[in-house]
Amino acid sequence: MTELDPNLRQLCANTIRALSIDAVDAANSGHPGAPMGLADIATVLWTEVLRFDPTDPKWPNRDRFVLSNGHGSMLLYSVLHLAGYDLPLDELKRFRQLGSKTPGHPEYGITPGVETTTGPLGQGFANAVGFALATRMAKARFNGRGDFDPIDHHVYGILGDGCVMEGVTSEAASLAGHWGLGELVFVYDDNGISIDGSTDLALSEDVEKRYQAYGWHTLRVDGHDQRAVKAALEEGRSVTDRPTLILAKTHIGFGSPNRQDTAGVHGSPLGAEEAKLTKEKLGWTYPPFTVPAEVKAAFTAAADRGRAAHAAWQDGLTKWKAAQPDAAQLWASTWERTSVDLSEAALEALADAKGATRGMSGAAINALAPRMPALIGGSADLTGSNKTDIKGAARVHDQMSGRYVHFGVREHAMGSITNGLALYGPFVPYDATFLVFSDYMRPPLRLSALMKLRTLHVYTHDSIGLGEDGPTHQAVEHLWALRLIPGMCVWRPADGIETAMAWAYSLSQGDEMPHALVFSRQSVAKLERPAGFSPKDVWRGGYVVKDADKPRVVLMATGTEVGLAVEVAARLDKAGFAARAVSMPCVERFMAQDPEYRSAVLPTDALKVSIEAGRTGPWQMLTGTDGLNLGVDTFGESGPYEEVYAHFGLTPDAVFDRIQARL
Amino acid sequence: MTELDPNLRQLCANTIRALSIDAVDAANSGHPGAPMGLADIATVLWTEVLRFDPTDPKWPNRDRFVLSNGHGSMLLYSVLHLAGYDLPLDELKRFRQLGSKTPGHPEYGITPGVETTTGPLGQGFANAVGFALATRMAKARFNGRGDFDPIDHHVYGILGDGCVMEGVTSEAASLAGHWGLGELVFVYDDNGISIDGSTDLALSEDVEKRYQAYGWHTLRVDGHDQRAVKAALEEGRSVTDRPTLILAKTHIGFGSPNRQDTAGVHGSPLGAEEAKLTKEKLGWTYPPFTVPAEVKAAFTAAADRGRAAHAAWQDGLTKWKAAQPDAAQLWASTWERTSVDLSEAALEALADAKGATRGMSGAAINALAPRMPALIGGSADLTGSNKTDIKGAARVHDQMSGRYVHFGVREHAMGSITNGLALYGPFVPYDATFLVFSDYMRPPLRLSALMKLRTLHVYTHDSIGLGEDGPTHQAVEHLWALRLIPGMCVWRPADGIETAMAWAYSLSQGDEMPHALVFSRQSVAKLERPAGFSPKDVWRGGYVVKDADKPRVVLMATGTEVGLAVEVAARLDKAGFAARAVSMPCVERFMAQDPEYRSAVLPTDALKVSIEAGRTGPWQMLTGTDGLNLGVDTFGESGPYEEVYAHFGLTPDAVFDRIQARL
Repeated sequence: MTELDPNLRQLCANTIRALSIDAVDAANSGHPGAPMGLADIATVLWTEVLRFDPTDPKWPNRDRFVLSNGHGSMLLYSVLHLAGYDLPLDELKRFRQLGSKTPGHPEYGITPGVETTTGPLGQGFANAVGFALATRMAKARFNGRGDFDPIDHHVYGILGDGCVMEGVTSEAASLAGHWGLGELVFVYDDNGISIDGSTDLALSEDVEKRYQAYGWHTLRVDGHDQRAVKAALEEGRSVTDRPTLILAKTHIGFGSPNRQDTAGVHGSPLGAEEAKLTKEKLGWTYPPFTVPAEVKAAFTAAADRGRAAHAAWQDGLTKWKAAQPDAAQLWASTWERTSVDLSEAALEALADAKGATRGMSGAAINALAPRMPALIGGSADLTGSNKTDIKGAARVHDQMSGRYVHFGVREHAMGSITNGLALYGPFVPYDATFLVFSDYMRPPLRLSALMKLRTLHVYTHDSIGLGEDGPTHQAVEHLWALRLIPGMCVWRPADGIETAMAWAYSLSQGDEMPHALVFSRQSVAKLERPAGFSPKDVWRGGYVVKDADKPRVVLMATGTEVGLAVEVAARLDKAGFAARAVSMPCVERFMAQDPEYRSAVLPTDALKVSIEAGRTGPWQMLTGTDGLNLGVDTFGESGPYEEVYAHFGLTPDAVFDRIQARL
Repeated sequence: MTELDPNLRQLCANTIRALSIDAVDAANSGHPGAPMGLADIATVLWTEVLRFDPTDPKWPNRDRFVLSNGHGSMLLYSVLHLAGYDLPLDELKRFRQLGSKTPGHPEYGITPGVETTTGPLGQGFANAVGFALATRMAKARFNGRGDFDPIDHHVYGILGDGCVMEGVTSEAASLAGHWGLGELVFVYDDNGISIDGSTDLALSEDVEKRYQAYGWHTLRVDGHDQRAVKAALEEGRSVTDRPTLILAKTHIGFGSPNRQDTAGVHGSPLGAEEAKLTKEKLGWTYPPFTVPAEVKAAFTAAADRGRAAHAAWQDGLTKWKAAQPDAAQLWASTWERTSVDLSEAALEALADAKGATRGMSGAAINALAPRMPALIGGSADLTGSNKTDIKGAARVHDQMSGRYVHFGVREHAMGSITNGLALYGPFVPYDATFLVFSDYMRPPLRLSALMKLRTLHVYTHDSIGLGEDGPTHQAVEHLWALRLIPGMCVWRPADGIETAMAWAYSLSQGDEMPHALVFSRQSVAKLERPAGFSPKDVWRGGYVVKDADKPRVVLMATGTEVGLAVEVAARLDKAGFAARAVSMPCVERFMAQDPEYRSAVLPTDALKVSIEAGRTGPWQMLTGTDGLNLGVDTFGESGPYEEVYAHFGLTPDAVFDRIQARL
């Protein structure tokens, strides 16, 4: 690649610094310190290293760049603007304003060129590990077929002290080393300052040695010596058998006479006076929000090279597809996949399903995986319990063409890497653990919902039904805690039909959004359904599973409690109280139905009873405050699951008595 | 310390193995592999190293022992039984049965001698770091005064492969190294097997090098060579300036001819046949649940030594207290503290409070800290934003007599270490981050509630009111997600009086339970309250803050939205709709009031409106389904907070219009 004149490099870096200072001061809010400290590194990366095409931010073979320390967003917005992405200077002037393309932290889907939403520390780094894993997996699928390799790029990123301290980063770094992800090159912005002051307050470990222990290639560099930074990035790119961490010593707030190397420049505007002094010190003489022509030209040259590379790649791809029809089909069914209704295949596989819903889920996965090459999965060391294995598929570590990932006991990184896998392009990933351990991975779940990613999360052992492992392992609050995340779709199927339809929906129907698929450890009853039932009724989220004429009682339940509701409804009928049972596998889908449907299922004049082996309060949204809410509002108990259910009054007798007492 | 005969050591270890095999087989559920693999280490630890008094499991100067891989609970139950704790053999026979003292995972408060609830991986290790930090902090407070040092013990623990992989462990290990916690000695059960199979599937890092990078002392040992294990533990105890990790190579399921060193022995009973073969191989000829007399004697001897040490310590403490009245007073006010009503002091400090509630919280902390020596605090690198500093108090790293801990950007370990600090004895700890990042620390929050610990969690920047940082940093679902955790008390005060009373309540009133104290970034209105208001009304969780005669509308709100509710209520009055405003700083406290009080505050015949800048659905518990629920049901937006509030319709005009349209 071309090498810029040192003076021009300096001018580029100072342009980034000045834009960042100006935007933060205009907003009177933001983080100037990191962009000022990282401007030299960003200059080298974006003018001389990164391959990108601003006219097509989704080009599959682009290099990815992730700013894990997302609070330094003005660094990213500055280079995206300079590089010619659809991010005009006016948007930089509207930094942190309502409705702008320049929100406080980089947000995927808002700003072209932003590869993932970052800000919650450590997430971007772990997403990037997901990108690099996806790159390796895509290489194994598409390269080496003929004389054109469609996947041939790197994943670059920057992380700060905060990211380095977060546990999710440690988990992801260990996995990146384990997988030997040579595609990954990260720069550690080692500026010695975090919000509370010097990092000495809380960080005295040897970060370089730690990453070496993970199996990373490491090197140290002066983050303001652009020539050395370039050499370091090139070295990182040349190491193919393991990821690289470049520890770059930088000065936070570089150039600010009174704030450089202090926590004061981390998250506060410089203000007019210090901005003036800083620009003087940097030799920056332009008015606010100015981009010197030669700087624009330098970035444009890089973009032009990228656009040319993209055009050549497109040409190669076209010929490759023509010569390799099998590969072309795989490409289309992954990178360019369209929604296919998988419900028939899933239903067929689960027609005679018996046992626990987790087993039914496993059958669904294995029925659908052959029909959906994009589907890949994994578990946080609970494969046998989660029933998430894809039979016959290779393990990703052994063969990168495989489809199943062993994440180890690292739920948090698993969630964040899954986000990266989903963002990358050709994959629809699922991950898995016990429902109670969804707590370990809430940050990536939230970000998946915020980014509107189709990530699938298999959560088994979903209640006190887990039995002997006891309260530490029994989910109680988790169903509702997941339902609270805006844009998360939570399924808790009751039997094979619902399991089939939940998988089919989450894989291919509806909006792009994360789905939690929640399954039981224990066996479920096979439900009889009324005449006229169609499996697609399941997609309405709630539907009548046992009806009665003019019901006086409507019992609604999810998952393992639906069989209980049906049984009690039948008993109530016999006792002279007309009772309906409603299965409610997905509250979000039910709430999305029109009010007429909802009130037809849950008539206002009936006593409404919810049964779910978890927190009860929010069910009052559906039962009203004068309904009855049966569940578990304390922590669970260790014991055989039937006894634990009895302890919490979730047996046919106890439920019948509770309802009868109210009639 | 005494050294056992090698044959007796073997017999002790085999007793632990046999008890574990028998209990797991009796329950037909559980994890025999780890107890069988760790029996040699546990034998040495409990017969020759650990100082404990089974007749007083709360003796302040006992050595602590934490089994972080809590699924190996039968190891702990076996040694607790052998050592003479109140855990009869009958309880071992009831392993994993409802109501037994031997639940599936070790639970604090259920089983004497269990120091903390473990099972969710990594938590026990991080709790133990909290124990060791607390030990160091207690030493700094109580030792060196006269010729008796009351605190002189160690913290031992065992962690497995799962714990090693979890990010929370990485965070806590880094902090333990940073703090130089020589009191901490951990054994890594390096057996090469996790649930999915060989750890090679997901773990290829150099664990020893990683812990060295954290500043730990490390050594390797054969975990079945009891002599070497003893030497390693003694070496660990002798290193005083940093924690020690002993990497012990062990065989999971040691002794099982067909299952040793396989994942099959991790979490499944051996079954009658393999149990028989195993016992034969171990040379174990006793009937099930037998403890040979010489084994009992060996453990009893250790207990006797501990009891004697305890008696001598008690004697020394009594004399020390008499000779050091200041120290005795500090001892009493920390180790033996009784509840003191701090509300007057808090109210006085906040009488003229203005600005954001986070600032008021800071004032409360600084008013109460001098009155409560047990109070210590910290933040995950957001001290200035959280306003959690104790002014004038030293930082714990610089001076272990200090009261303020910089946790770095490690929310998860912060929560788990806080649990350890609370469990240890003389401390009431608080920690702090932004509300949105409570997601990073849900596992320890849950365990704190399960263990009924008085941990305090300061969460500032509690809503879209955070403004420009945008949706990644704006809590939306978090208030209700916290309220869902059974036994968690969530406070969101509206002004100085409520802030004062929330702090006073959480520090000293009510049950031992975790409290989330949720504060605003932005300023709040000063509330006028009706005649007859008493500050202790705040402790009812919800109370009338602006009344009206026979209200047609009742607006209930929390925190920053209370001022809005009051303003709209006044406007509604003027428009001819009698309106009451209710402040609801703590939903849990309100739900705990008697029904008469609740219906007096929220009369059934009024339109009920909830206003809280977060998820609205669960508010229907209080408004009914025919009420109005105003809040934020999507992710937030980046922008100045007033504009973001307006965007979501949370302005006096918009709220007034919404309500008027319904009247």
